[in-house]
Amino acid sequence: MPQLRKDPVVGRWVIISSERGKRPNHYEFRRNGSHNGPCPFCRGSEHMTPPEIMAYRPAGSNGEGPRWTLRVVPNKFPALMIEGEMDRRGEGVYDLVNGVGAHEVIIETPNHETNMGTLTEQHFEEILWAYRDRILDLKKDKRLRYVLIFKNQGSEAGATLEHTHSQLIALPIVPRNVADELVGAEDYYKHKERCIYCDIVRQELEEKVRVVSENGSFAVICPFASRFPFETWILPKRHSGYFEHASKQEYIDLSRSLRETLVRLNGTLNDPPFNYIIHSLPFGESENGHYHWHIEVMPKLTQVAGFEWGTGFYINPVAPEEAALCLRQIAL
Amino acid sequence: MPQLRKDPVVGRWVIISSERGKRPNHYEFRRNGSHNGPCPFCRGSEHMTPPEIMAYRPAGSNGEGPRWTLRVVPNKFPALMIEGEMDRRGEGVYDLVNGVGAHEVIIETPNHETNMGTLTEQHFEEILWAYRDRILDLKKDKRLRYVLIFKNQGSEAGATLEHTHSQLIALPIVPRNVADELVGAEDYYKHKERCIYCDIVRQELEEKVRVVSENGSFAVICPFASRFPFETWILPKRHSGYFEHASKQEYIDLSRSLRETLVRLNGTLNDPPFNYIIHSLPFGESENGHYHWHIEVMPKLTQVAGFEWGTGFYINPVAPEEAALCLRQIAL
Repeated sequence: MPQLRKDPVVGRWVIISSERGKRPNHYEFRRNGSHNGPCPFCRGSEHMTPPEIMAYRPAGSNGEGPRWTLRVVPNKFPALMIEGEMDRRGEGVYDLVNGVGAHEVIIETPNHETNMGTLTEQHFEEILWAYRDRILDLKKDKRLRYVLIFKNQGSEAGATLEHTHSQLIALPIVPRNVADELVGAEDYYKHKERCIYCDIVRQELEEKVRVVSENGSFAVICPFASRFPFETWILPKRHSGYFEHASKQEYIDLSRSLRETLVRLNGTLNDPPFNYIIHSLPFGESENGHYHWHIEVMPKLTQVAGFEWGTGFYINPVAPEEAALCLRQIAL
Repeated sequence: MPQLRKDPVVGRWVIISSERGKRPNHYEFRRNGSHNGPCPFCRGSEHMTPPEIMAYRPAGSNGEGPRWTLRVVPNKFPALMIEGEMDRRGEGVYDLVNGVGAHEVIIETPNHETNMGTLTEQHFEEILWAYRDRILDLKKDKRLRYVLIFKNQGSEAGATLEHTHSQLIALPIVPRNVADELVGAEDYYKHKERCIYCDIVRQELEEKVRVVSENGSFAVICPFASRFPFETWILPKRHSGYFEHASKQEYIDLSRSLRETLVRLNGTLNDPPFNYIIHSLPFGESENGHYHWHIEVMPKLTQVAGFEWGTGFYINPVAPEEAALCLRQIAL
């Protein structure tokens, strides 16, 4: 069983998931490692993944079988296990909890496509509906507090299989980064009675220097304090805490914003490896005046090194104003 | 002038250092990039670096020239500038400060050695004295609040030159990660009137499962909540907040602990890329009962990916108990 362990000084949680890896001598550092053999995410390889959790198939097609357009399966090497109780306990100065949770893979297309940016807008919409469906389903499990949707594209961004896919990890604990946002946003709200994210959207759309694009529902910006070169955030214009509470029109507009953002990054940066994550309110919270869901897209162009690990500061050699200017100029 | 910018929601600082990089189109993602040409850190290439800040030369040698054994120079592409005033200011919802600080390189040997672990114990001692000398000198600058000493070895750990070297960045703001440790340690002290780090050392030396090695002054352990496979911490047995307050015997023992740790990591993991950082009390604080300086060594074997960026949690596939066992078994 994996364990969730808490650092006794700073309260940072880690998932110790030994079953996931090989024996330690498999951790020898290897340069340019790569995966060989048939791709388990392609149409026709359905038997290579654990049993399907959910799939989208065209109307009129058989309930199972290879005619899927999107497929969700458990991660074959899950960081957390869905069975079991949490069982919080101490060991001297330390705290730990059983690694209860879910770890799923959203296979975005049956074709061996390695670059999400080449998928159609309709396909992006389907992916967003799948995220929503999985969040709503996992929300029923009372042991869980949060579902993080994330994507790693490119081995440098942590992807181990190149066939385009997203992942979700459902956690029994609210993640530190989301908790920090909640505290910061609530604090701002107490002083101003306004949402900090709404204020950011307003200021950015007025100043226009860090805006990449805009449509009816979303503003796409390079954030003022970008950690990484070409970091790009997608913020809904309508105040809402939950990704899964977005309207149909918002999902349509978001699929456009997300796809365009990836196309712009590909055009500017030669198909960079990247991560994106969705931040949304934890389960069990209520919509409030201060928290505002959003997507953060982080191209992986620089290495995070000693300085960042030591300080929690980031050194970014490209000003977001310059990044936004480059991204705006890409023809779609 | 670089800028220090603060994220308005979570308070995270970033250094926007556009002068440091090339133009944005130089940020296109390139696989397997590498540096060519003569090494600016080798003996005989002294003219290729900015003017020397400090160097160690054998007694009796000329005050300048190539007979150095260790040399400290300003970083040629500094993230922060030593000249200027801080000038804190706002821009709408945002806060920023001029990027005042120092960014120096400690060239650890005149020979083109790429693996720090091959240096002698005496050489390690010299490196530690250089860290101390630079900290004591920078402490005189009243604009500065912290000096982070760090090392990146291997391009995957962020090193851009392979000749073994460390770096320091002096900051006008206490880094978030150090501030988090201070808050956590003080909180523990309020409850228990004991230092959490002293308690960790005591428990680890009793249990022995996560201990890698031990000498008169230091305990080397794989921490209970390791973020990374084979993460290893070096903790002084004597309670003290400041690295630069260590005794001569402690520097001798530390050079042994640090060198042995790198030799063990090299032996177990085939010369992995790694980072290490020194955490010590910020300038202007006083020695207290709760904060305890230490070194964190982090091999870079896994990619930090979307899950980690989204949550602040880490997934570690190697239990620290198993890592410590492997490291202990390496013959020195």
